[in-house]
Amino acid sequence: MSNGGGVMSSTTHLLDFLEEPIPGVGTYDDFHTIDWVREKCKDRERHRKINAKKKESAWEFTKSLYDAWSGWLVVTLTGLASGALAGLIDIAADWLNDIKEGVCLNAMWFNHEQCCWGSNETTFAERDKCPQWKSWAGLILGQEEGPGSYIMNYFMYIYWALSFAFLAVLLVKVFAPYACGSGIPEIKTILSGFIIRGYLGKWTLLIKTVTLVLAVASGLSLGKEGPLVHVACCCGNIFSYLFPKYSKNEAKKREVLSAASAAGVSVAFGAPIGGVLFSLEEVSYYFPLKTLWRSFFAALVAAFVLRSINPFGNSRLVLFYVEYHTPWYLFELIPFILLGVFGGLWGAFFIKANIAWCRRRKSTRFGKYPILEVIFVAAITAVVAFPNPYTRQNTSELIKELFTDCGPLESSQLCQYRSQMNGSKAFVDASPNKPAGPGVYAAIWQLCLALIFKIIMTIFTFGLKVPAGLFIPSMAIGAIAGRIVGIAVEQLAYYHHDWLVFREWCEVGTDCITPGLYAMVGAAACLGGVTRMTVSLVVIVFELTGGLEYIVPLMAAVMTSKWVGDAFGREGIYESHIRLNGYPFLDAKEEFTHTTLAREVMRPRRSDPPLAVLTQDDLTVEELQGIINETSYNGFPVIVSKESQRLVGFALRRDITIAIENARRKQEGILLTSRVYFTQHAPTLPADSPRPLKLRSILDMSPFTVTDHTPMEIVVDIFRKLGLRQCLVTHNGIVLGVITKKNILEHLEELKEHTEPLASPWYYHKKRYPSSYGPDGQPRPRQHNVQLVTAFPGRQADEEESEEEVVNLLDGRGSTL
Amino acid sequence: MSNGGGVMSSTTHLLDFLEEPIPGVGTYDDFHTIDWVREKCKDRERHRKINAKKKESAWEFTKSLYDAWSGWLVVTLTGLASGALAGLIDIAADWLNDIKEGVCLNAMWFNHEQCCWGSNETTFAERDKCPQWKSWAGLILGQEEGPGSYIMNYFMYIYWALSFAFLAVLLVKVFAPYACGSGIPEIKTILSGFIIRGYLGKWTLLIKTVTLVLAVASGLSLGKEGPLVHVACCCGNIFSYLFPKYSKNEAKKREVLSAASAAGVSVAFGAPIGGVLFSLEEVSYYFPLKTLWRSFFAALVAAFVLRSINPFGNSRLVLFYVEYHTPWYLFELIPFILLGVFGGLWGAFFIKANIAWCRRRKSTRFGKYPILEVIFVAAITAVVAFPNPYTRQNTSELIKELFTDCGPLESSQLCQYRSQMNGSKAFVDASPNKPAGPGVYAAIWQLCLALIFKIIMTIFTFGLKVPAGLFIPSMAIGAIAGRIVGIAVEQLAYYHHDWLVFREWCEVGTDCITPGLYAMVGAAACLGGVTRMTVSLVVIVFELTGGLEYIVPLMAAVMTSKWVGDAFGREGIYESHIRLNGYPFLDAKEEFTHTTLAREVMRPRRSDPPLAVLTQDDLTVEELQGIINETSYNGFPVIVSKESQRLVGFALRRDITIAIENARRKQEGILLTSRVYFTQHAPTLPADSPRPLKLRSILDMSPFTVTDHTPMEIVVDIFRKLGLRQCLVTHNGIVLGVITKKNILEHLEELKEHTEPLASPWYYHKKRYPSSYGPDGQPRPRQHNVQLVTAFPGRQADEEESEEEVVNLLDGRGSTL
Repeated sequence: MSNGGGVMSSTTHLLDFLEEPIPGVGTYDDFHTIDWVREKCKDRERHRKINAKKKESAWEFTKSLYDAWSGWLVVTLTGLASGALAGLIDIAADWLNDIKEGVCLNAMWFNHEQCCWGSNETTFAERDKCPQWKSWAGLILGQEEGPGSYIMNYFMYIYWALSFAFLAVLLVKVFAPYACGSGIPEIKTILSGFIIRGYLGKWTLLIKTVTLVLAVASGLSLGKEGPLVHVACCCGNIFSYLFPKYSKNEAKKREVLSAASAAGVSVAFGAPIGGVLFSLEEVSYYFPLKTLWRSFFAALVAAFVLRSINPFGNSRLVLFYVEYHTPWYLFELIPFILLGVFGGLWGAFFIKANIAWCRRRKSTRFGKYPILEVIFVAAITAVVAFPNPYTRQNTSELIKELFTDCGPLESSQLCQYRSQMNGSKAFVDASPNKPAGPGVYAAIWQLCLALIFKIIMTIFTFGLKVPAGLFIPSMAIGAIAGRIVGIAVEQLAYYHHDWLVFREWCEVGTDCITPGLYAMVGAAACLGGVTRMTVSLVVIVFELTGGLEYIVPLMAAVMTSKWVGDAFGREGIYESHIRLNGYPFLDAKEEFTHTTLAREVMRPRRSDPPLAVLTQDDLTVEELQGIINETSYNGFPVIVSKESQRLVGFALRRDITIAIENARRKQEGILLTSRVYFTQHAPTLPADSPRPLKLRSILDMSPFTVTDHTPMEIVVDIFRKLGLRQCLVTHNGIVLGVITKKNILEHLEELKEHTEPLASPWYYHKKRYPSSYGPDGQPRPRQHNVQLVTAFPGRQADEEESEEEVVNLLDGRGSTL
Repeated sequence: MSNGGGVMSSTTHLLDFLEEPIPGVGTYDDFHTIDWVREKCKDRERHRKINAKKKESAWEFTKSLYDAWSGWLVVTLTGLASGALAGLIDIAADWLNDIKEGVCLNAMWFNHEQCCWGSNETTFAERDKCPQWKSWAGLILGQEEGPGSYIMNYFMYIYWALSFAFLAVLLVKVFAPYACGSGIPEIKTILSGFIIRGYLGKWTLLIKTVTLVLAVASGLSLGKEGPLVHVACCCGNIFSYLFPKYSKNEAKKREVLSAASAAGVSVAFGAPIGGVLFSLEEVSYYFPLKTLWRSFFAALVAAFVLRSINPFGNSRLVLFYVEYHTPWYLFELIPFILLGVFGGLWGAFFIKANIAWCRRRKSTRFGKYPILEVIFVAAITAVVAFPNPYTRQNTSELIKELFTDCGPLESSQLCQYRSQMNGSKAFVDASPNKPAGPGVYAAIWQLCLALIFKIIMTIFTFGLKVPAGLFIPSMAIGAIAGRIVGIAVEQLAYYHHDWLVFREWCEVGTDCITPGLYAMVGAAACLGGVTRMTVSLVVIVFELTGGLEYIVPLMAAVMTSKWVGDAFGREGIYESHIRLNGYPFLDAKEEFTHTTLAREVMRPRRSDPPLAVLTQDDLTVEELQGIINETSYNGFPVIVSKESQRLVGFALRRDITIAIENARRKQEGILLTSRVYFTQHAPTLPADSPRPLKLRSILDMSPFTVTDHTPMEIVVDIFRKLGLRQCLVTHNGIVLGVITKKNILEHLEELKEHTEPLASPWYYHKKRYPSSYGPDGQPRPRQHNVQLVTAFPGRQADEEESEEEVVNLLDGRGSTL
């Protein structure tokens, strides 16, 4: 624009100082990977500019203050909005869920519990029954009891469930396809530096909020906890648009999203610290300390807003507030670890089954009818769920009931123990372990059925085109299993109190087994098995109980569950879905254990056409456009000249295109024959040549480079830690190729296909580089898999590929230019 | 060793596969920085070897299992040992502390409290008094009351305090000089990748444990919490020697140390989660997720061991267990924030004063008499502390008393409120706010004096040659200030309950202000001001109270304190001490906000002699030794040849020396005139030349490189995130120089000296590079501080330094070779 006329004269290059940035340069296309280093540099630059200006005037000073505080502001807003939305969703889902069973005559907008609060006629024991609350049978048929009304209620239950499910999937399909699923795999991918436009937009937020309520109310085997993280991230993304610091910088925006996901978990479970650790352990990629503070703050704000809304009506922050009064004993670690094993097995089974099903959905015709699929699953769920009280009720209420220990006031079927004192079931003293009554046995059968039902339905539900989290279903499965085990151990301790283990700890007449604790441990184990979280999970459950007492059982179960699960496959459900969907996500948790070198991964490979490079000062605009059109690479290394192929810098395809377009529009005299130069001074040209085009401003003069001998473990480390998009590979200062994030992911995928790359490197190598094997199947001299142990591990021993060969590799290149 | 005779023949290079690593290569000298990348590669290499072998035999499989579990084993052992030592220290310090006042006649080894537990004659109200416990006056003079016995007690108090202090400093001075101080600055430095041999050794552990007890008992204004972290890290280091995985790898060892520091804080406060976050936020440098899990585990184990030992006699894990029963009101945020301001001011003042004093100690003759200094400080402390009950008692007991709310059973002077009902002081109902009685006023005066005393003494105590933490003194100062503010607000609310703020929330007759909560908020604020911790501090205090209720006040105060403190200087006390001691610590928290480029920081600078480089195949052993002897660099870039100065790799000085020595000892025919080559094949030599020396195995063929145009912010980022030791600077593939961690630290130091580098870049630049200014003080054309905003921020606008200049720079180099 203001590039100044005579670029060739040495004095006018000062005008470059005023050169405005070309609009569009430095932004990203949809479904592209961001360059963290570049983004962070941009932010520091912006910060420096504001700081330099701030002394100029009071207005600039105010602006700098606003800028400094915008980080806190945006997380506060995000926290407020997440808390409010979570409260809203809780209340609406509760209400809609009860609509399936009946309606409040006094006030339509009351749910079952609220409806009966106002009633004076209810006693505490029968607090669920009140004349104001009418079941559908009562309303339509006029009678609450009897087989006719049961069928009526059954029918209405299915009707409402199907209506909600249909509405949910319709809204998602028509308005916001991104609103389906839990959203956590995509958020992980986005946080790792990928652009998915609209995934965190206002439409997604709106539709996800509405359909989440519908999906939960439809009775499908899903939870609202995962989607709440997505909702919170949408809030974070939307509020970040108020602050240029965050809206214009993809790296900074991700800091807000990290904080938002902490707020999401914070409101999902009422566990602020657990939320921060979840964000740190599970979803975030780049998590500087500043983000830790802000995440913590956002999580707190969100939790307090939710507490003020008080959707659970118990003034408690947490979803499942429980208090246990008995300690645990060392021998109980055995059942806890068994629960851990169960959790791990369930997790591994669920991941395998769910991924297989989702792959089937993706690959076959079957996936073309998402609405039908949802209705079908919802119908089966409703039909099977209604007869069993443990599946009919809200899953989170079920979990709460299973977690809760039997007290004197507990009216649940699970607490119908035979009291030793008087044999009556009416009033049972809470403390000592007692023999189970018929109610408990009936409950156990129903729970077993519920367990099987939940296991099957969850596999088919997660992946439907409705918002669906799997924290709650997983926890429910674990809680059911845990409670059953807990009751079993309790009865064992009662009937066999002379066994060595029980004799030592469980005196007769005292309460030594808490079945509710087993349910909690089981829930944590199953959730751990599915997600492979550890610390954050333990902390979330710790925040539910509020006591350090039970951390050891939880830790034991969660760790066992992780180890057992990892034995079947190291990926959690979210990573598996990321891989299924092919998102470019470089997992920071997985160790790269192979011995490949950078030159084996870089492009071009041996059989590919040579690397497309640009020379710094002897291309014309036409030639440059030719190279761009012929190739599809995202960027090109710039070298000194064809003769001396030393690396000067790196230019992005998008930036070159924009810059050429911009120049041809705004600068006069730029023709197709104009020389393009990336150097500081224009090359000396014949007098009649057209005005040259200077592109130095889009040249990245500090590209990341590694040598061709760098072990891939280091390259992967660099990509992860610095968040690179690409890296150039050099040999003795000469450019050999490029490694992009995608190349690394492909390489990892290739390595993964071979179950035992370490045991059979030859086979593995042969498959990848058939050309390096002779006709007898024996390796030709040049291959790279035998390891030399030296001071620099990872070094390849056979270095047949000498200078000449590299030069040969380079020689072929000139032809493409 | 087994390098094989004819290295020149192309077939024998296969023997290189068997080449054993040269012993000593890859280890570090004392006070050197480790290379994280290299260490991690070494570990992966070891892991691969074990994995490859594990199928061979059952024994190998067992070994691989042992290896896989050794991480968990070592943190378990560390947790066990830390918990046990912490319990031991707690009990011993309690006992010794009480020895200052008297002795238990029944059992010498009982402290005051334990002594009176057994007594039947004590009532609950007078639980401190029992006939078995004799004060020194009672024992020596035979009378407990009266001025004579007061003086006797006073004398004995001073005598014991001085004895303990003398013994502590003597032990430290004679046996383990590293045992002094809190150890946290050094641990931070070690964790960032520095080697200080013996700092975490068994002698340090032993002496630190013993002297910590003595120092705490001497009554000096110090705490045992910081040193407990050092003790735990010593345990971690010692146990890591049992496992080759950790003992032989400096990077892996640091993972254990991170976990150990979490265990240390966990036992110091009884806050396992807080400990993990402390390790993450404050001390650790490299904190992968695996370390997070292990830290959590170590912290838990340590906490449980400590709870089993039960040193506080209350079955509680935590040092200050408190329970508040009243909520807080919004208007109370004002005093809480004021406490935050106080905490920030105190922190800033303390850091400035303490650093000034420590610098004086370092620079003047005064620092030569550490024993005298300790005795002098201990004497003043004892003399001043005894008359005031709040300074005489154990500091942690003082904090506990200040935190505790006044209940009906509280006999403390602080709770002597005038009851409105009957005016008697004997039995006071806890609930409503009441007017303060004379006891409270007296207590406030004593607290004010104690506050001033603590403030002054802590400044002179932290830095003495005894183990000394400052968590407890800082918290005490905050707790005193907080309690005073709390009582003031309480009285204000009582006497002015018609004021708008109080009228709304504080009804007459109800309890609305909890002075204990103010004390806790004040303690957190002061600790935050000194250490600049935020999240971990809030979580630690949250774990003390166990309620989410009070997180908002805590957060408000801690954040305010951090901001106020940061306004006076961004460094916490630990960073300041690191800087004072000149440790090579690259703070990950501090943003690098300057615009310098790599070429301005690299060595050699313009005025320095040219860079010492090695050519890959035309140096003799003698020439190589000459280069090594003439320079003091830790490593040398290896280039293709003098003509083509393209980068081949990097060789470390230590490795070259070891390799040459090794070769001359073990290989025949290596003379001073032998040719040294770093290439794969030996260069063609005249027939009569001696056998050449191949040094390829010590050549790092994947050195990290950046271009000379790379902004320093990126370079600093790379150093921090990858933990580099050095990085080579290239221009178009040609080596220009080296940047080491030390260069970066020097550069940061230089930048810091200029208060406002952004506002006055010219001045700043002039001071640093006087040569680039003309005689008129105006800058010469070549300087690098004006910024060009382009797609690649951080780019320097003035690029007068063209190719030729770089070549000139390079040309001078040949002469040193």
